[in-house]
Amino acid sequence: MSEALRVGVAGLGVVGASLVRLLKRQSEGLSSRTGRPIVVTAVSARDRSRDRGVDLNGVTFFDDPKALAASDAIDLFVELIGGADGIAYDAVKTALEHGRPVVTANKALIAKHGLELAKLAEDKGVALAFESSVAGGVPVIKTLREGLAGNSIRRLYGILNGTCNYILSKMETDGLSFEECLAEAQRLGYAEADPTFDVGGFDTAHKLAILASLAFGAAIDAEAIHVEGIETITQDDLAAADELGYRIKLLGVAERTARGVEQRVHPTMVAKTTAIAQVMGVLNAITIDGDPVGELTLVGPGAGGDATASAVAADIADIARGAAIRPFGRPVGSLEEVERIPMQRHEGGYYVRLMVVDRPGAMAAIATRMAEQRISLESIMQKGGGAGLGRRRRTDPPPKKQDQETVRVVLITHATSETAIRDALDLALADGVVTQKPQVIRIERE
Amino acid sequence: MSEALRVGVAGLGVVGASLVRLLKRQSEGLSSRTGRPIVVTAVSARDRSRDRGVDLNGVTFFDDPKALAASDAIDLFVELIGGADGIAYDAVKTALEHGRPVVTANKALIAKHGLELAKLAEDKGVALAFESSVAGGVPVIKTLREGLAGNSIRRLYGILNGTCNYILSKMETDGLSFEECLAEAQRLGYAEADPTFDVGGFDTAHKLAILASLAFGAAIDAEAIHVEGIETITQDDLAAADELGYRIKLLGVAERTARGVEQRVHPTMVAKTTAIAQVMGVLNAITIDGDPVGELTLVGPGAGGDATASAVAADIADIARGAAIRPFGRPVGSLEEVERIPMQRHEGGYYVRLMVVDRPGAMAAIATRMAEQRISLESIMQKGGGAGLGRRRRTDPPPKKQDQETVRVVLITHATSETAIRDALDLALADGVVTQKPQVIRIERE
Repeated sequence: MSEALRVGVAGLGVVGASLVRLLKRQSEGLSSRTGRPIVVTAVSARDRSRDRGVDLNGVTFFDDPKALAASDAIDLFVELIGGADGIAYDAVKTALEHGRPVVTANKALIAKHGLELAKLAEDKGVALAFESSVAGGVPVIKTLREGLAGNSIRRLYGILNGTCNYILSKMETDGLSFEECLAEAQRLGYAEADPTFDVGGFDTAHKLAILASLAFGAAIDAEAIHVEGIETITQDDLAAADELGYRIKLLGVAERTARGVEQRVHPTMVAKTTAIAQVMGVLNAITIDGDPVGELTLVGPGAGGDATASAVAADIADIARGAAIRPFGRPVGSLEEVERIPMQRHEGGYYVRLMVVDRPGAMAAIATRMAEQRISLESIMQKGGGAGLGRRRRTDPPPKKQDQETVRVVLITHATSETAIRDALDLALADGVVTQKPQVIRIERE
Repeated sequence: MSEALRVGVAGLGVVGASLVRLLKRQSEGLSSRTGRPIVVTAVSARDRSRDRGVDLNGVTFFDDPKALAASDAIDLFVELIGGADGIAYDAVKTALEHGRPVVTANKALIAKHGLELAKLAEDKGVALAFESSVAGGVPVIKTLREGLAGNSIRRLYGILNGTCNYILSKMETDGLSFEECLAEAQRLGYAEADPTFDVGGFDTAHKLAILASLAFGAAIDAEAIHVEGIETITQDDLAAADELGYRIKLLGVAERTARGVEQRVHPTMVAKTTAIAQVMGVLNAITIDGDPVGELTLVGPGAGGDATASAVAADIADIARGAAIRPFGRPVGSLEEVERIPMQRHEGGYYVRLMVVDRPGAMAAIATRMAEQRISLESIMQKGGGAGLGRRRRTDPPPKKQDQETVRVVLITHATSETAIRDALDLALADGVVTQKPQVIRIERE
């Protein structure tokens, strides 16, 4: 048995406390697997006196994470502070500069500074590991980096934010509005007081940027991601999806085509028969389509102290074993600057929900606008006929023109381009046959 | 860039040919990830002249796999011959004895000789990797061995045989008998001419033995596994399962309890809402329940040349990178000889389908036998009343006593023991109120 690996943990929130407990509880299994004891010898946190339900006897307490990162009393630095910049960034950089391996759960930090930090880690010949930064306890980074090392990845898509999936699942099962389900998520601690980061899709985008880099051997390009949230999804959309054999999920999608890499986060219609559509509640799931493996789906807990600590511990174990794996699987210098495919050039099927003026020729006008853009329609559903307004649900925004009778129409298109669909709808709005901003949801096909 | 890793491939069947193609097609990505080119320099196969659609120009051909394993012209030996003993065993042992790392897809070999071979590999300080031996392209071994290194596993269960899952899925969706679906599977190449190894559950048992060892740090104990196949499943069972909210899957289940380790393979009722129940067709899936991670499910292609080659390539890449990982994650000597829990002591819910004599007091007699064994019933479904025999489906075995009217009764029990349920049913048979061997299917709860 080799010497103990001395671990310093910066940040003793929910994940930090779970990790300290886990490393103690699983110490036998971990030392058997890695050939050496793994011991938390130092920590840093804002409040030294707070009771976290963990035994910190004999553990050195640092007030400054940077001082902990620089300390020779540890062999490995775990960053659980959070935030893309500031003290988390400073502390991680300090640890790497001191030739100390780093494990972090910080997706924002890796999405923003991952390449720079990975370069520093490579130069120093130490590890920088971040399994826990994406999908919590699901080992998706190890799968992409090692388990699929012989594959070239064509596409990956996933449910990467448990808050959004909880809200969409709850809307579907309980028939409640987005606002009601968000309030429930907040009550249960699944959503923050300011939920924008989650429900707006930004958290998913950070995670997608990391996965896309690992999948395609591409330099992280978080700014290239097209991001839409779930705030506009209504019961009407869920009902139409159900009728058409779909579920609505907030997906992060990254796809490599001959022209470059497309990265996007938006509510998505997925066939009910797919593995990803079955994933309800706060779970996360990722489907990876690789050559030659085909489709692989991983499902598991995407957040929470214990699940996240599980992934942090796996990274620590890899480092303790001396696994020589580069942060992004390949040398940072070899990561390609790939061509961004802007959203306007996205091609796929679309679900469009329109409020259409209830008068002769209105549908013909819309159909003409679609035909002009060479959009071919797979199906048209019209609900309520002349009684369109009367059937409006309370979760819909109010119609703009109270004096006009409208009907709700749902269109499903065959594959077309984002530009074509947007142009057709803009023109239909300008024509006056569509009375409010249409709801557009992309369809992800297997 | 370091020197090339020279790979020798023994066995050029479907997987071998896929692997040779993969290593050529993905050579750039693999060398970028591992820091060295990976090149097939030698192969062995029975028939030198057969056209396998792979370019073997410049590749040395060996007639004898053992000679290939012993050759200094290779740095790594890949065994794709198959079979628990004989030439596959000899060749793998030879390679390890020569201090040469080995990658194998051979589940039978690992289930039977894994501990001995792993010990030899450890003594020689070389790798023995077998990701592809379980669940094809799904990286479940890496997940258990590395991704969940900080967990203790409570239970794992999975669909580990695509043939069985194809047959059960087809029976459900098309309403056909086991025999009809087996014939279709054979026609499509999903099942062998002699299907016993697959449909009898033995293939699943080999894979389960390997997973259980990795999950629990236990010595492989394939003989401890209770094995039942899917041959007795009828449309009646599928219909009852559907009505009760279940699907029937052939699962391998390994569970660690305070008393020891339970390992069993049998048709199982799983709730339709579970991730595993959604897995249809030839796919494989494994759910792992760990402390602290919770439940993790992996779904993907469990067989086929390309999926299997993907896993073989990942193992090769790990070795090329110099990953120092022991075959079973921990030293072979530390693997525990755990207490076997015999099937008689299994506890859980049961589905029981009975043909009951249609006369007053028959049900009371059965209920009494259940009560004597302290079995509590969750539900009782009786179909067809006095017309029981008339409703018999053609897939049922013929009733023993043609002169007696019988009714089909389905019981669902609360948790009880295997002994209790078997005793109660034996007594009911002896009482003469049950006319043929009851169908018993265990229920696996989340």
